[in-house]
Amino acid sequence: MIPNLNIVPFVSVDHMMKLVLHIGVERFLTELADYVEEDFRRWEAFDKTPRLATHSAEGVIELMPTSDGRVYGFKYVNGHPKNAREGRQTVAAFGVLSDVGNGYPVLMSEMTILTALRTAATSAVAARHLAPPGARCMAIIGNGAQSEFQALAFGALLGVRSLRLYDIDPGASEKCMRNLRGRGFDIVPCRSTEEAVEGADIITTVTADKQYATILTDNMVGAGVHINAVGGDCPGKTELHRDILMRSDIFVEYAPQTRIEGEIQQLASDHPVTELWKVMTGQAPGRRSPRQITLFDSVGFAVEDFSALRYVRDKVAGTGLYENLDMLADPDEPRDLFGMILRAAKPAAAPARIA
Amino acid sequence: MIPNLNIVPFVSVDHMMKLVLHIGVERFLTELADYVEEDFRRWEAFDKTPRLATHSAEGVIELMPTSDGRVYGFKYVNGHPKNAREGRQTVAAFGVLSDVGNGYPVLMSEMTILTALRTAATSAVAARHLAPPGARCMAIIGNGAQSEFQALAFGALLGVRSLRLYDIDPGASEKCMRNLRGRGFDIVPCRSTEEAVEGADIITTVTADKQYATILTDNMVGAGVHINAVGGDCPGKTELHRDILMRSDIFVEYAPQTRIEGEIQQLASDHPVTELWKVMTGQAPGRRSPRQITLFDSVGFAVEDFSALRYVRDKVAGTGLYENLDMLADPDEPRDLFGMILRAAKPAAAPARIA
Repeated sequence: MIPNLNIVPFVSVDHMMKLVLHIGVERFLTELADYVEEDFRRWEAFDKTPRLATHSAEGVIELMPTSDGRVYGFKYVNGHPKNAREGRQTVAAFGVLSDVGNGYPVLMSEMTILTALRTAATSAVAARHLAPPGARCMAIIGNGAQSEFQALAFGALLGVRSLRLYDIDPGASEKCMRNLRGRGFDIVPCRSTEEAVEGADIITTVTADKQYATILTDNMVGAGVHINAVGGDCPGKTELHRDILMRSDIFVEYAPQTRIEGEIQQLASDHPVTELWKVMTGQAPGRRSPRQITLFDSVGFAVEDFSALRYVRDKVAGTGLYENLDMLADPDEPRDLFGMILRAAKPAAAPARIA
Repeated sequence: MIPNLNIVPFVSVDHMMKLVLHIGVERFLTELADYVEEDFRRWEAFDKTPRLATHSAEGVIELMPTSDGRVYGFKYVNGHPKNAREGRQTVAAFGVLSDVGNGYPVLMSEMTILTALRTAATSAVAARHLAPPGARCMAIIGNGAQSEFQALAFGALLGVRSLRLYDIDPGASEKCMRNLRGRGFDIVPCRSTEEAVEGADIITTVTADKQYATILTDNMVGAGVHINAVGGDCPGKTELHRDILMRSDIFVEYAPQTRIEGEIQQLASDHPVTELWKVMTGQAPGRRSPRQITLFDSVGFAVEDFSALRYVRDKVAGTGLYENLDMLADPDEPRDLFGMILRAAKPAAAPARIA
C-alpha cells in the first residue's frame, strides 16, 4: 500500500463516504465495533495520555494521542458550538496513524465521519454488555448528526428494530426518519421525551449545544433500562438529572477523563464507576439483574479513534479509495536534506542553482 | 485560497522544495527570520503548552501545539536516531495551522524541510542579538542535514563569509562544501574541532545521535565568542562541556523546556538563563561586552513552527504550490452528516440506497 518512504496514504471525506458505501454502513459499524472491543480488551497495553486541549472563547481544539507500543495514533478535533449557525460542523476532525518503530505516519484520514461511526460503534459495544437481553426498542433523544449512526449501530449489533424519536426541532426527527427509511426499523416520532421513552429498553441521549440541560428527569427512567448517554461530553455539558445517576450503575471509558467531561461531573469525585474494559475482560460485572439501570456515560476516548484508524487502514488497502500524499522528505542520503532541495531544481546547463 | 469549507491546502515535500527554490533559500531564511522575531516579540500572547511526547525504546513521537489566541498551530515530529541507518530521516515532521475562531485547519504542510529552515532562521535571529558585532567567521561542528541551512542563514542574516567545517566523517564536510559551492563562502575543511574553532567569531555545534558527548571542551572557547548550540536537544543529549556553560551567559527559547532538553540539563535547575524574547523586547540585555561568551542553547520551540507555518501560508498563496485536500466534512446541513453519505452514492432510479 505504501510504494515509497515519502508517501502517506490519505483518506479524504469523499473517499471515506465511498468506503462506507462500499462496505455498507451496517457492516462497517459491526466490524468497527469488533476493532473497538479488541482494543478495549487490551486496555492496559495503551499509553493513555490526557487529551491536550487549547481553549478559546469560541471553542476548543484538541489533540488526542494514544499508542499500544507498536502503533501510535492521534486525532485533531475541534468543538465550536457556534459553527452550526455558520454552516460549519460543530466538530470536525482528522487523524494520523504511525509506526512507533520509526515514527513515520502510515495513514492520514478525515475523521469527522469516522468519529460519528466510532462513537456509535462504541455505544453499541457497551450496550452489548449492559443492555437488557432481547432489547428491541430504543428511544433516541436528540435527532441531529449522530442519531442515524446510533440507530444503525444498535440495529446491526443488538437487533434493535423499534425506534422512538424526539427532538425539540421536529424537522430533525423527520430528517432522521427519512435517512433511515428502508433499513428495517419501525420508527415512531414523538412529541416529548416522556412519550419517546415509553416502553423503550434502551434510551440514547444525544442532544447538542446544551449547558447543564436536563434532558432526562428521574421519573422518566423505569427499572431495567439501559441509558446510552452520548451528548454530555465536555465540562459544563450534561443531559441527565443527578437523581438518575444515583440510581444507576455507571460505566465509563476512562474514569479520569469522564469525571471531567461526562455526566458524572455532577457527582462526587469518588462516586463508584466501572471502566468498560473491565466488564469486557471479566474483571467487573456488567448487567447483573433485570431491574438494574445501567448507564454508559460516553465521552469518547483516544483508544476508540485508534481502533477506527486501524480499521480504516486495514479496509482501505486495495480499494484505491485514498490518495498518496508526498508528506515525508526522503533524501537519498538522510544527511543531505539541502542537496535534495538543490536537485529539485530544473536541470540547467550549469550545476543546479536557485538564484 | 480556500475555495470551499471542506478544503485544506496542503504543501507537500515537492511543493516545499519548489517554494524554497522559487523564493530563493537565502531570502526564505531572511523573511522567515522576521516572522520568528515578530512572534518572539509578542511571546506573552502565546499559549505555551509543553510538547506531548510518546516515548518508545526506538524513539519519540511528539505533538507541539501553540496558539496566539487567533491562530492555532501544531507540529507532529518524530525522533528516531536509528532511522538514518535504515535510509529514513531521523526527524520527520508535518504541521497544521488552524483558525481558533472555528477550529478548522487552514493549512497543512510537510515540516521536515521547514523545520530545518526554521531552526537555522531562529539560530540566526538569536545571533543577531548575541554574536559579536562584525562577526564574519563561523565554525560548524557537525556537517549533517542541518549544517547548510545554518551556514546560509548566518550568511544571509549576519554577513558570515568564512566557514570552518568539521565532522567526524570527512564525507559529511565534503557534502556540505559541495552543496554550498557558489554561494559566496570561503570554506575551510578542518581535521579537528580544535582546528575548526580557531579564529571563529561564532561556533555552531550541530552534531547528531550523541549521548552526553563533549564536542566542545572549555579550552577551545576563547573570549568574545558566540556559541550556537543546536545539536543538544533532548534529555541525555548534550554537546558542550559543563565548564563552558559556567563561563557563558546563556540564552534560551523557553526555559521550562530547555532545562529538560538543552545543554543546561547539566546545570542546577535555578542556574540563571535569559529567554530570548526578553532580549528582543529590551527587557533583558543581550551581548554586553566584547569579551563575554554568549551561548544560545537551542532546542526548538512550538512558536518557531507556528511562525514557519504562518510564513508558508502567506507565501504559498497565488503560487499554485499546494494541493487541495478534501479533509473536512461539509454537509449542506450540519445536522445531516449521514444524509451526506447517502447522497454520495451514485444516483439510481429509486431514492439513493447504499445496500
